[in-house]
Amino acid sequence: MEFDLIDLIRERTHVPRADVSLGIGDDAALLTPPPDQQLVVAIDTLVDGVHFPQGTSPQDIGWKALAVNLSDLAAMGATPAWAVLSLTLPASHRDFVQAFIAGFESLARQHEVALVGGDTTQGPLTVGVCVHGFVPRDRALRRTGAQVGDTIFITGTPGDAAGGLRQHDGHDASSDILRARLNRPTPRVAAGVALRGLARACIDVSDGLLADLTHVCHASGVGAEVDAHRLPLSAALQSCVGPAAARELALTGGDDYELCFTAAPDQADAVMRALAGTDGGVTPIGRITAGDRVRVCDADGRDITPRDRGWEHFHA
Amino acid sequence: MEFDLIDLIRERTHVPRADVSLGIGDDAALLTPPPDQQLVVAIDTLVDGVHFPQGTSPQDIGWKALAVNLSDLAAMGATPAWAVLSLTLPASHRDFVQAFIAGFESLARQHEVALVGGDTTQGPLTVGVCVHGFVPRDRALRRTGAQVGDTIFITGTPGDAAGGLRQHDGHDASSDILRARLNRPTPRVAAGVALRGLARACIDVSDGLLADLTHVCHASGVGAEVDAHRLPLSAALQSCVGPAAARELALTGGDDYELCFTAAPDQADAVMRALAGTDGGVTPIGRITAGDRVRVCDADGRDITPRDRGWEHFHA
Repeated sequence: MEFDLIDLIRERTHVPRADVSLGIGDDAALLTPPPDQQLVVAIDTLVDGVHFPQGTSPQDIGWKALAVNLSDLAAMGATPAWAVLSLTLPASHRDFVQAFIAGFESLARQHEVALVGGDTTQGPLTVGVCVHGFVPRDRALRRTGAQVGDTIFITGTPGDAAGGLRQHDGHDASSDILRARLNRPTPRVAAGVALRGLARACIDVSDGLLADLTHVCHASGVGAEVDAHRLPLSAALQSCVGPAAARELALTGGDDYELCFTAAPDQADAVMRALAGTDGGVTPIGRITAGDRVRVCDADGRDITPRDRGWEHFHA
Repeated sequence: MEFDLIDLIRERTHVPRADVSLGIGDDAALLTPPPDQQLVVAIDTLVDGVHFPQGTSPQDIGWKALAVNLSDLAAMGATPAWAVLSLTLPASHRDFVQAFIAGFESLARQHEVALVGGDTTQGPLTVGVCVHGFVPRDRALRRTGAQVGDTIFITGTPGDAAGGLRQHDGHDASSDILRARLNRPTPRVAAGVALRGLARACIDVSDGLLADLTHVCHASGVGAEVDAHRLPLSAALQSCVGPAAARELALTGGDDYELCFTAAPDQADAVMRALAGTDGGVTPIGRITAGDRVRVCDADGRDITPRDRGWEHFHA
């Protein structure tokens, strides 16, 4: 099965890059990283029925497999460059692969990401992507730099993907907007690059805002307070699930791939300006505190932290 | 599940490298490639029951997952440096992961490969590894350079892994040597590096000698003749399956991860000298011909090409 599919994939990937000496078709790719930057490498795998609902279209799977990886690069402030793909399929479905690659490539072209290699294997549907990007030396965003007093920000409108999943499961009214947020997340690459030198800590929200903010706090040795009333909630989410559930999904829903980051309070204006031109916008939602607790407050400062602080995607 | 396992993996990986600025634990790894070399990237995924028999020990799975990837780097003449791991497990088995990482690390240490990142996911047992290495500019071995008249070489003793699989399936007498060749293949990294500037084309044998030699011929626009009587057959394989089956397995059996390469005939002595100190040895087994056929000849030059020229690992 492997060889026909690799030819098919090679025919349908078209992002030219001068730094690719040898792409798909040999035992490995040959690449030329820029000499003055650090290489940023992430790998993320999507499993059928775990990271996307069974029945998700192959185009959407292709898009999402790249998107979740580009989101990791965005969280580091990196500029994407190359991807390699490991595609495990139950059988050799030419149509599936064509559609999958079409979805993958439509996002790859937006970010000038060249697919430079990969392998195809027979087995349960699983999509592994390893992405490579660049960041100027010592300018990468990390999880470890949050400081007490920092303002916490979130890009976009968290909770939408979880809303899309709920409607997929038949709980709510249908919304194309929410479905697209689940199936075609937007990696916040431009925001990540713009935050170099501004953000002190950054993570992308895959497990849920509270869960991922907790990772930042753990890595930085700090706590956090999130103001529930400041959470940016999309009109689509509020109209589909109501305001209370929208807030809960924004705090605990996974798969949003927004950036959650912190910056010094006197940099808040600079952050808003730097991200003014990027998709999705940005909202200050709280502050870094001493200690190790991550709390949620209402408008009167009362602790309303939900018990369930995140999930393992929609599976758990 | 993901976070405990990542901590566990981080605790048990210990290959220090000065070119790793940030390893496991953030959204991505931060790495510093050498400025004067090309980056070589390969990805290969092992699926339970496809690339290793069900019941293979987790130590062996860990070793093999890295070995098949290092073999791709070896086939390019690259020096290994970094790996990222995507581990999909049916459930969170701490013991499995400990054993898996022990096998992975025992090979990683041999080649000074740092595990710099990865993800863990719940799903059918699947192991994806993406490896990175370096090669001086324009010195990589590729599949495309074979020329008519070149001598064809193979490292080691092909067919052993297929023999190990046959005994796993209960066909033959048991041999620890063959079992080890199936479960713990030796990537020919030193041979690949030694072949820079000597080999004109190179591939690693994962699908079978004839199948992979055919890939070289296809990429180079040439044909090949393999002398069956020159095939280096291990004593273990011959004593387990007999000489005729040994030859057939050497030609068509997968999973050997030996290097098959070509060199100009006047470089044959240089090849033998360059590889004299490497594991497994090297044997000239035939010649590149005009045309596009890959044939097998007996000692009298008669065509004895088998019909079944390779397999998709042991699955097909």
